[in-house]
Amino acid sequence: MHAPTRFMVLTLLFILFTASTAIASSNIYIHLLNPHYGSGGHKHPDLNCLSWRLAVETNNLQNWTVVPLACKDYVGHYMLGKQYRQDVDLVTAEAYEFAKGLNLAGDGMDVWVFDIDETTISNLPYYARDTVGFGAVPLNLTTFNAWLEEAAGLAIPGSLKLYKKLIALGFKIVFLTGTEEIHREARTKNLKAVGYTTWEKLILREAGDGTGVAYKAKKRKELEEAGYRIRGNMGDQWSDLLGNNAGDRTFKLPDPMYYIG
Amino acid sequence: MHAPTRFMVLTLLFILFTASTAIASSNIYIHLLNPHYGSGGHKHPDLNCLSWRLAVETNNLQNWTVVPLACKDYVGHYMLGKQYRQDVDLVTAEAYEFAKGLNLAGDGMDVWVFDIDETTISNLPYYARDTVGFGAVPLNLTTFNAWLEEAAGLAIPGSLKLYKKLIALGFKIVFLTGTEEIHREARTKNLKAVGYTTWEKLILREAGDGTGVAYKAKKRKELEEAGYRIRGNMGDQWSDLLGNNAGDRTFKLPDPMYYIG
Repeated sequence: MHAPTRFMVLTLLFILFTASTAIASSNIYIHLLNPHYGSGGHKHPDLNCLSWRLAVETNNLQNWTVVPLACKDYVGHYMLGKQYRQDVDLVTAEAYEFAKGLNLAGDGMDVWVFDIDETTISNLPYYARDTVGFGAVPLNLTTFNAWLEEAAGLAIPGSLKLYKKLIALGFKIVFLTGTEEIHREARTKNLKAVGYTTWEKLILREAGDGTGVAYKAKKRKELEEAGYRIRGNMGDQWSDLLGNNAGDRTFKLPDPMYYIG
Repeated sequence: MHAPTRFMVLTLLFILFTASTAIASSNIYIHLLNPHYGSGGHKHPDLNCLSWRLAVETNNLQNWTVVPLACKDYVGHYMLGKQYRQDVDLVTAEAYEFAKGLNLAGDGMDVWVFDIDETTISNLPYYARDTVGFGAVPLNLTTFNAWLEEAAGLAIPGSLKLYKKLIALGFKIVFLTGTEEIHREARTKNLKAVGYTTWEKLILREAGDGTGVAYKAKKRKELEEAGYRIRGNMGDQWSDLLGNNAGDRTFKLPDPMYYIG
């Protein structure tokens, strides 16, 4: 297994996020989930990347800072391949099944909370850079913030589909992100550009808001104190979903590239 | 991909649970994780069993009653193959890393709570039966209870290793199971037979205890009210880990065969 080249990455990102599902499903299959080979094709008997990813997704591994180097290519192939997309699709489909079974009060106060990064917008063009290595390189906040300002993130297809269906069902949408307030314009531009055209609130993080689970729980509490009812809550991090006022039901989208506690 | 035969199943169970890790790792590799083929080798384009299992393990799918027929063979191969074992090993290793960093009071009140089924004892010989189909057939409580009375469950190697290390570190062990009190003798016999030779408490379910998350939370509350401190809590079901008095940290072991709410 070789490291994805820049050309492969860009081609795949283009196909995965712009082409129809039919094309993506029939022509692309580089999803080589062999966990026993890491960077350069060397065997890594001590780390099973499938087990590592499962432990990450179930919150058994916490406070990790980078993707293990041995799993860099595995994570890259997973994120660029069909499996990631299908993993997301199953969760968003289940979320819709749940949502359509709820009775809404019709007063406009039933909300669905979405995180942004790797939940509604994908930063894969950034994470696929050689200098980022799908999370195997420690986060460079300067380059990441510059990327945010480009407002060039991609819609995650399953989440965009769910978003549209929730609005059709009568839910109000709240975006709740750990991004700092200073990036509001760029985030707004990015959301609108890829199809998230309307929302009740777009909550960004301000000085004194704290971080991670404390920040998200605080903002959700404020929402419910203002009379909103959080019926569903979707994020790629457990810190989006744990703590008070979590919502009637939470949905965890996959993200093996980074951890926010 | 063919359905595992009875001979394969028994042979693998023998090898997986009795032979050394070295033998199991080098000789056995029937772990054919191709989610696109279901029973009889027919393609199932609508259900990706890898996505299904991930959604189960992350608690995105809830209140499901049986393994989808299209994923029966996938689940069987997963449970009998190396991947399940390695998935468990990574979680139990992480639990040990966590546990050894804790300061114990030395008063014998620091406890580690283990669920039993598919957490410390494996019921694979039962679930591998043709009549059970790795959870693809609806639960037959009569045959399952008869199996429990056989006291023939197998130790889950990673959990047994963790159990021994926790005792060496000074933790007291509490087994907390949804099994009914009437099976106490059989469960005791089974635990001791496979290496779980000592414990502080073995809590079984009595009439009026409720079920699932309510039962487990109630018993954990009673434990902490009695002065015990739950430092770690490990189970194969989210209902082992959610709710009050969950413990300083929880660990979710894989189980794609059944759901307890």
